Amino acid sequence: MSTQSRSPSGYSTWRLIAEELRREIANGARPVGSRLPSEHELAERFGVHRNTVRQAVAGLVAEGLVESRRGSGTFVTQGTVLVHRIGARTRLTDSIGPSSSATAQLLDWAIEAEPEPRVIDRLRLDGRPALRLEAVRAVDGTPVSRATSWFVADLVPGLPELFERLGTVTGSLRELGITDYVRSSTTVGARHATAAESEDLELPPGAVLLVVRSLDTLPDGTPLSFGSTRFPATRVELDVEHALIP
Amino acid sequence: MSTQSRSPSGYSTWRLIAEELRREIANGARPVGSRLPSEHELAERFGVHRNTVRQAVAGLVAEGLVESRRGSGTFVTQGTVLVHRIGARTRLTDSIGPSSSATAQLLDWAIEAEPEPRVIDRLRLDGRPALRLEAVRAVDGTPVSRATSWFVADLVPGLPELFERLGTVTGSLRELGITDYVRSSTTVGARHATAAESEDLELPPGAVLLVVRSLDTLPDGTPLSFGSTRFPATRVELDVEHALIP
Repeated sequence: MSTQSRSPSGYSTWRLIAEELRREIANGARPVGSRLPSEHELAERFGVHRNTVRQAVAGLVAEGLVESRRGSGTFVTQGTVLVHRIGARTRLTDSIGPSSSATAQLLDWAIEAEPEPRVIDRLRLDGRPALRLEAVRAVDGTPVSRATSWFVADLVPGLPELFERLGTVTGSLRELGITDYVRSSTTVGARHATAAESEDLELPPGAVLLVVRSLDTLPDGTPLSFGSTRFPATRVELDVEHALIP
Repeated sequence: MSTQSRSPSGYSTWRLIAEELRREIANGARPVGSRLPSEHELAERFGVHRNTVRQAVAGLVAEGLVESRRGSGTFVTQGTVLVHRIGARTRLTDSIGPSSSATAQLLDWAIEAEPEPRVIDRLRLDGRPALRLEAVRAVDGTPVSRATSWFVADLVPGLPELFERLGTVTGSLRELGITDYVRSSTTVGARHATAAESEDLELPPGAVLLVVRSLDTLPDGTPLSFGSTRFPATRVELDVEHALIP
């Protein structure tokens, strides 16, 4: 790790440089998408060694304010567009401010007689077919998620057409008489986007995705849907709800 | 997105190729760290177009079984070493199987009179100093997390020495009379590792980290610690606990 003095104040040159760059990003002098000067240029400007500049920039990367793209430099990121809450009864739409406009687009769907073993298992399909939906969601025109969801097909007749018309899964399920469902399990991982995902989400090559795998059930525990939603990490942050068990 | 026929079976050539490669990884014919053959080689072997092979490999990337490193190829990943549970009363050690051996190492610490504004705010420091700990944790010798944690310094006198001796935060806090604390908030993001993080966590350049920011409080709500823990995404998966509110 980068060694640091155990000084009582905890302040050091790299922190002051990071602070100055942070200020320039915040006040718009360095707009979203702009390239930071090179380490060499920053070292000259601040009159310090390149290692000190490197530490300051690493700090900004760690905060998500800038993003290093291999071979092309360091860029000011867009900032979080969406905070996605993860809880037993939260819906994606809960997370978007009232002034923003969210849209969902159905990319593809299929009835699968034999989906992946993991899907058969989680949905307890036992020979029944699954409906697979492929969708992308955007907030104010910026793509924020790419979801692949499997439903127990016979529980949701006509879901693709409803979803295409209404642009919301929760709303479509309501039309089908499913007025309530609960999150049963959620796991979170992260990885690089594939080329197809980068295209769907309008991301640069090598972008990082948060991958949320979830199982939703009816209130009585009957499995309803299982799937994975990929969120661009530069645009979405997950917020976990904690219910305190007294 | 990659177009797919809306066939009733949902099976297609790329899925069969992915299935075969998955089998070869599972049975050890392709060990962890080994490089997959090139798209060209795989296309020849299976007698298909390169696009079909690309789709199969993208599927394995999506599952986290292999990882593409730009310019050098696609490699079999290590697989999940640790499932880290996120809940109101879970501890990191909860997540590790009984047969595994977990170790924590203190890399650095400092008393900070003026930490970052975010830390002052979350810990309600109001002029009091913070203790910053830098630590790395490993399971069976593989690094699984790199944490930066700030504590309200006057609540935890001597914590660095205790942590260094005991190798556990929970155990050290117990020695200080803090027998219980609860998770108050958790957010999850993801990004590329910095060079220093890659070194601490023994990761290749460009590796992806899950970043968990959390605030722990005493049972009465008094802030105790705030920090960020970075988990290598190829080694750790987060599992969110859902407490159902009836």
